[in-house]
Amino acid sequence: MEIAVLRNVQEHNDATAADIRRLLAEKKICMINIMGGAGSGKTTLLERIIPRLGLRCAVLEGDITTIHDAERIAAMNVPVAQLQTDGCCHLDAWLVFDGLNVLPLDAVDLVFVENVGNLVCPAEFDIGEHHRLAVLSVMEGDDKPAKYPLLFSRACAVAISKCDLVQHTNFDVARAIRDIHQVNGNVPIYQTGPKLAGDEEVLQWIRDAHVRATADEAAPA
Amino acid sequence: MEIAVLRNVQEHNDATAADIRRLLAEKKICMINIMGGAGSGKTTLLERIIPRLGLRCAVLEGDITTIHDAERIAAMNVPVAQLQTDGCCHLDAWLVFDGLNVLPLDAVDLVFVENVGNLVCPAEFDIGEHHRLAVLSVMEGDDKPAKYPLLFSRACAVAISKCDLVQHTNFDVARAIRDIHQVNGNVPIYQTGPKLAGDEEVLQWIRDAHVRATADEAAPA
Repeated sequence: MEIAVLRNVQEHNDATAADIRRLLAEKKICMINIMGGAGSGKTTLLERIIPRLGLRCAVLEGDITTIHDAERIAAMNVPVAQLQTDGCCHLDAWLVFDGLNVLPLDAVDLVFVENVGNLVCPAEFDIGEHHRLAVLSVMEGDDKPAKYPLLFSRACAVAISKCDLVQHTNFDVARAIRDIHQVNGNVPIYQTGPKLAGDEEVLQWIRDAHVRATADEAAPA
Repeated sequence: MEIAVLRNVQEHNDATAADIRRLLAEKKICMINIMGGAGSGKTTLLERIIPRLGLRCAVLEGDITTIHDAERIAAMNVPVAQLQTDGCCHLDAWLVFDGLNVLPLDAVDLVFVENVGNLVCPAEFDIGEHHRLAVLSVMEGDDKPAKYPLLFSRACAVAISKCDLVQHTNFDVARAIRDIHQVNGNVPIYQTGPKLAGDEEVLQWIRDAHVRATADEAAPA
């Protein structure tokens, strides 16, 4: 008995991701996909970073339900849309595409997409982003890069978050860094937290990422 | 700041699910979506049931990777396609639609879709099926209906599997039945296993499901 093998979940998604890349190129916008577990501090990092970036930002907030995170972004007077997946564990390209189309793209330099809090599925889906930022808090455990290698292997940068609280945990920063570099040799890793030097480094990485993504000669990743 | 809320993951999927329903109606085929955790015994149940159904069956085997389950079905000389999600945690309607189109639909009465082994995400996605069969093994624990209510609340029937081994576990069948009925009041629950009466009951439920789905007046669910 012959067995046909079909594998097109990604192909359908990827066609829309390509449409997103064309739209971003046309509008000269950089898009960064932020991924990490629930409660890892993705929204808090955006709250600290966006006011200091010096770029016109907008945010697409991915969540299974609620608009809590979008409300936090809107409170900064930053354009935001809430992408509700209704139970689904990740954002796909269609929802992101629709989200982009309700943002004021002509007045935006940089779109952050905060993916659904989940260390597994978001990493599987290309949403047309230029760069991927992984966020891992010291509260989640230093074993996470080894247990969820895909997300970290695909990251363009990693922010270890809540590092101001690391002394209250048994999180071994050296182990986390070692395990991340095991799956993603040259990825920059920043130890972030209020008033920590890692916040400045993330700011600079984002500014550089914006320049690379919107340079005329840039081919989106 | 106004917050746009977008929720179209399901809409895109559901348009294709509607295409599937039209195809099944045209071909007079009943489709049953089998959902349950990894290792719950979905494939084993199909191996016991298909040879005794008296209907021309085909199977779409959903898995993240590998063709192991499809090989078990093909060994029975039953038409089968392997749907590989490449890391994704559920089947969506597009992949099922493509799978149907490689099956010999003119010689098939009933298609079983064995979803990815997962108690969460598969229940979220309409794949155009007529009926949903949930499978829960006594090895997984009697707490699963309470912890994963959506899957059980959407089931049209529940097979408690591996009941021939229940005396070796601390699985409380009465508790599982009570918790399933708490979220899905009238759903039939069958205690299945080799040579158990529940296998006969599942066979009869499937035959009745086929009649209901393919009756001229039937409107697919």
